[in-house]
Amino acid sequence: MPETLDLAMELIRRRSVTPEDAGCQKLIAERLAPLGFEAHRLRFGEVDNLWLRRGSAGPVLAFAGHTDVVPPGPLTQWTSDPFTPEVRDGMLYGRGAADMKSSIAAFVTACEAFIRDHPDHAGSIALLITSDEEGPSVDGTVKVVEWLEQRGERIDWCLVGEPSSTERIGDVIKNGRRGSLTGRLRVRGRQGHVAYPHLADNPVHRALPALAELAAVEWDRGNEHFPPTSFQIANIQAGTGAENVIPGELDVMFNLRFSTEQTDEGIRARVHGILDHHGLDYTLDWRLSGHPFLTAEGELVAASRAAIREITETDSTLSTAGGTSDGRFIAPTGAQVVELGPVNASIHQIDEHVRVDDLDTLSRIYAAILTRLLTS
Amino acid sequence: MPETLDLAMELIRRRSVTPEDAGCQKLIAERLAPLGFEAHRLRFGEVDNLWLRRGSAGPVLAFAGHTDVVPPGPLTQWTSDPFTPEVRDGMLYGRGAADMKSSIAAFVTACEAFIRDHPDHAGSIALLITSDEEGPSVDGTVKVVEWLEQRGERIDWCLVGEPSSTERIGDVIKNGRRGSLTGRLRVRGRQGHVAYPHLADNPVHRALPALAELAAVEWDRGNEHFPPTSFQIANIQAGTGAENVIPGELDVMFNLRFSTEQTDEGIRARVHGILDHHGLDYTLDWRLSGHPFLTAEGELVAASRAAIREITETDSTLSTAGGTSDGRFIAPTGAQVVELGPVNASIHQIDEHVRVDDLDTLSRIYAAILTRLLTS
Repeated sequence: MPETLDLAMELIRRRSVTPEDAGCQKLIAERLAPLGFEAHRLRFGEVDNLWLRRGSAGPVLAFAGHTDVVPPGPLTQWTSDPFTPEVRDGMLYGRGAADMKSSIAAFVTACEAFIRDHPDHAGSIALLITSDEEGPSVDGTVKVVEWLEQRGERIDWCLVGEPSSTERIGDVIKNGRRGSLTGRLRVRGRQGHVAYPHLADNPVHRALPALAELAAVEWDRGNEHFPPTSFQIANIQAGTGAENVIPGELDVMFNLRFSTEQTDEGIRARVHGILDHHGLDYTLDWRLSGHPFLTAEGELVAASRAAIREITETDSTLSTAGGTSDGRFIAPTGAQVVELGPVNASIHQIDEHVRVDDLDTLSRIYAAILTRLLTS
Repeated sequence: MPETLDLAMELIRRRSVTPEDAGCQKLIAERLAPLGFEAHRLRFGEVDNLWLRRGSAGPVLAFAGHTDVVPPGPLTQWTSDPFTPEVRDGMLYGRGAADMKSSIAAFVTACEAFIRDHPDHAGSIALLITSDEEGPSVDGTVKVVEWLEQRGERIDWCLVGEPSSTERIGDVIKNGRRGSLTGRLRVRGRQGHVAYPHLADNPVHRALPALAELAAVEWDRGNEHFPPTSFQIANIQAGTGAENVIPGELDVMFNLRFSTEQTDEGIRARVHGILDHHGLDYTLDWRLSGHPFLTAEGELVAASRAAIREITETDSTLSTAGGTSDGRFIAPTGAQVVELGPVNASIHQIDEHVRVDDLDTLSRIYAAILTRLLTS
């Protein structure tokens, strides 16, 4: 079954560095049109998005993915050109090989196999494809979800093709993600000469006890599905570079990855409480990248695990660790969401790659999920 | 007595931006040669220095000063050219007017007046002039002091012409300075993604409790002559700018201004003790800019205060506050050291200036000090 490899290579050849789609979505739509998928090309801002659907009945199983890739970095460090896919020693190399053009190819060929065997399947099959997952994620999946809600279309089961596997295909399914909340804190003091400390007010000194307290908070211990909420200071800066000047301001950027034990409102209130308790003169701007979401159990998780066991004889682990994904935009609609895709060891790196054999395996897993959920 | 104003203007006209002397020392030496001052032009590295001495007996009263000035900054912001001295509304404007070409001019004219009246004065009069006070201070006064020690010459009383006055001429005499000690601290952690905190080790979080403890230390309460020792974090930096990366290193630069209640060895040991107690993985590089020094009392302080009272009817205050001066290099030789010069409100600023009347007053104060110390 070399179709998945061939299609993955076709997609890698298209230089779809975020937010470019570079013709990937057209290729996918044309490939699935003969099978009865109706296509909606949805351009929001500078971003190409695609909604494909076969059937009008429910339930709807949607594959969610992205055609955009992160920049390749220094070309000279790549063994072969990142946009000229190459198979070496059983591995397919190229930017997007793991994140996530192979998943898209595998789902397309899975649809072909499944529909060949089950042309009159139950419900609907859909694909939600964006080219703005690696970028700001403003004109991508979130906009398509709004468009679907306006049309009264809903997704029941969403299979996100993100590379969830860690060592072998199917060993990990992501059934949720932590929330992500970023704070930009500016603490004001009064600049001055270090020789005249009484005329200045050092914002670093003022802030240190508050920051130490924030860094020491045990927010929660996680739960069955989530690791503990984590607070991390990612950036801190104050000072002019001179050794004899007391700085006038301190800038701190911190990020929390939070479990379902927290709400973003609760976190904000606690952070403000600590800063206020220490009497700081500050401004604090928040940005919520995503609420935590969880598909604890249900048909989609059960079908995914069973399909993986059937095809690979692997017992998969459920996990909510790791970074954000577009699943955060789909889960709030009430859909069950899981992420299932290839091994993620090389994503965003030089010489990104996947095992060639995994492409076929992944296609068969996806087809087995379709069979379990959309046949009676 | 316009000689002091004329000479100050002559000196300001010479663009002696540090470390340039621009002919100032030649002018001073030529002016004092007819009075019997023997000149030693001492060039160390790129720096011109001058040692002038009249007489071979002790005690030696030396005036210490510098001809170099800080850069003028944006010329367009100056009302008149910084190197074209101009008198407006009773003020002399120009770079170096307050720091410290007027003091040099005042001491030269004070010598002229004093020697006219007391050609056979006791002891010796000397001038130690450098052009490296505003810069690194490596090839200036410190080198001249070494040269003097090698020759077996010593200074008994040193009058540093730094602008010590705050509101009116003579209101403040600096009779010492705090020590200055700078630490460059680098705390190591392990970089990583904020989504995987267990794989990283945030050096900011590690360091916060230690830094908070350092900032909260009461080093001492000062003493009769010194304000309390002050610890100030001047710079702090960690992070790549990205919000999702745990930084791998934290850089901190701090400075202590310390009283005679401390030693630099004691401070270093206490800082290391706190960092070690918190188990930090760190490197710490120290730079000692100067030990604290103090001329608590003695003939020079007494003569200076009496001269100020005689000429201005002002009771001067003794102070050890403020930044470093070249007095730190002279005091360790055993000399009594005081700093006495014009009002410092405009030093290092745009439109630096002094009151014209203060030039004559300062010259008469210096002459009165010479009279009190070098006549019997």
